[in-house]
Amino acid sequence: MSSAIPWPVPEPVLPTGVHPALAAVARAAARAYGDARRRHTRAELGAETAMGADGTPTMLVDELVEEAVAEAARQAGTNLLSEEIGFVDIGSAVTLVVDPVDGSANAASGVPLSCLAAAVSMDGTATEALTCWFDTGRTWHAVAGRPTPYRTSGRTRLDGATVDVLRPRPRAREAWHRLTDRAGRIRILSSTCLEGALVAEGAIDAFADAGGDVHRIMDLVAAMVTVPAAGGAVVDAFGRPLEIDPDLTRRWSGVIAATPELAEEVAQAVRG
Amino acid sequence: MSSAIPWPVPEPVLPTGVHPALAAVARAAARAYGDARRRHTRAELGAETAMGADGTPTMLVDELVEEAVAEAARQAGTNLLSEEIGFVDIGSAVTLVVDPVDGSANAASGVPLSCLAAAVSMDGTATEALTCWFDTGRTWHAVAGRPTPYRTSGRTRLDGATVDVLRPRPRAREAWHRLTDRAGRIRILSSTCLEGALVAEGAIDAFADAGGDVHRIMDLVAAMVTVPAAGGAVVDAFGRPLEIDPDLTRRWSGVIAATPELAEEVAQAVRG
Repeated sequence: MSSAIPWPVPEPVLPTGVHPALAAVARAAARAYGDARRRHTRAELGAETAMGADGTPTMLVDELVEEAVAEAARQAGTNLLSEEIGFVDIGSAVTLVVDPVDGSANAASGVPLSCLAAAVSMDGTATEALTCWFDTGRTWHAVAGRPTPYRTSGRTRLDGATVDVLRPRPRAREAWHRLTDRAGRIRILSSTCLEGALVAEGAIDAFADAGGDVHRIMDLVAAMVTVPAAGGAVVDAFGRPLEIDPDLTRRWSGVIAATPELAEEVAQAVRG
Repeated sequence: MSSAIPWPVPEPVLPTGVHPALAAVARAAARAYGDARRRHTRAELGAETAMGADGTPTMLVDELVEEAVAEAARQAGTNLLSEEIGFVDIGSAVTLVVDPVDGSANAASGVPLSCLAAAVSMDGTATEALTCWFDTGRTWHAVAGRPTPYRTSGRTRLDGATVDVLRPRPRAREAWHRLTDRAGRIRILSSTCLEGALVAEGAIDAFADAGGDVHRIMDLVAAMVTVPAAGGAVVDAFGRPLEIDPDLTRRWSGVIAATPELAEEVAQAVRG
């Protein structure tokens, strides 16, 4: 007796000067997700249809939105590195690194916290990023090395901070409590990319995967551009370098924080 | 170096037939919160200004929005039972039971998950409810005993369910893990009333305060109308009756679930 999600998906509100390929994939993703909501029930959107290139199951909602993103990237003339289909090399100097639906479970069930996150990568370096929150059309855009309108909260200390996390994993429960016991407020929104945007604009102090090694590079790449531009930092809790790599089986425990000092405190709490 | 929240607060999208006093307080709250965002930084909105009638500190954002709600209720000619000012009796047969800003910490910091939740109460019984999500203007409306457009997910079993919770409290950590270890997905959005609306429309299966005794009646009253009308149930985890009472020091561990069976399974998991 699963129902359709009744709310519309608006067109993304795109800032001026955004890379045309980023704009194209954001528009394509929002339209495809809006169509998917109208045509399918929540249960259908969440049904697992295949195994993705990243080694996790693909839901119908992922598949439908990624198809639209891949077509938009092809028309824009860029390579694509994406969650389910992996690396599509058409010989361009530009690769779009895309999470077509970050927060897939939210997107399928109608929890209004899912987004597209995408970055322009040249020679393995992310130079520009766009995050688009599907339910509102809000976008966050940044270009590496240029000032942004967002500033993080500037917080440097973990004790009393507002920290978003992923759910505790059985093998990392102690790390999760080491981190969350010191936080003033905790949330689990289940959309790393949206939570990264909230760090960038100063709404929360930090976000972390507390040692679960759940993150793929497309979960973190938009934050890797947007958050440093706003004064913050993105690191792996165990100090591994964050690298754009077509091998999508690689995993990290990402820490996204208002300052480099806070990122290090969070990472230390996770490592114990 | 705290910044203002840059996003607008739209007018609530009100359904036809909603009680005029509910419509009035929703409009007043959205306008007051939008004004507050324009005039104050995040740090200012979150500054504690007083102790509320419910025994918890009042933030500036609570104070500003509640003032507007109280004025709207007065003009509508109803009594008011609200979080900070308590019970305002003007001799009406109708009392509005209102949480002017549910998710105050979110509202102050700019996490876009806060809402007004309000119910019409007559002779101590809630007969109609309205929840308004500030960042989108989305509303959920229900009248006791009448069909609603929302249906819960219909889920009856906890194992594998999607369950929202409050953060774990030190004295109830075991209860929190008893519940969340059995859930398929967990979230902490920090807005009980929005999470209640998500149960009503079938986006999540349940929401619970896992034994923290954090809920006041205005955290639950809108769900007490909206969720049963959509097929679900609202109970206290320890079986205490949920009562509209001007004594705002009373607390419950609310369970909001897709079905009465699921509510009982969640409550049992919390009790251990």
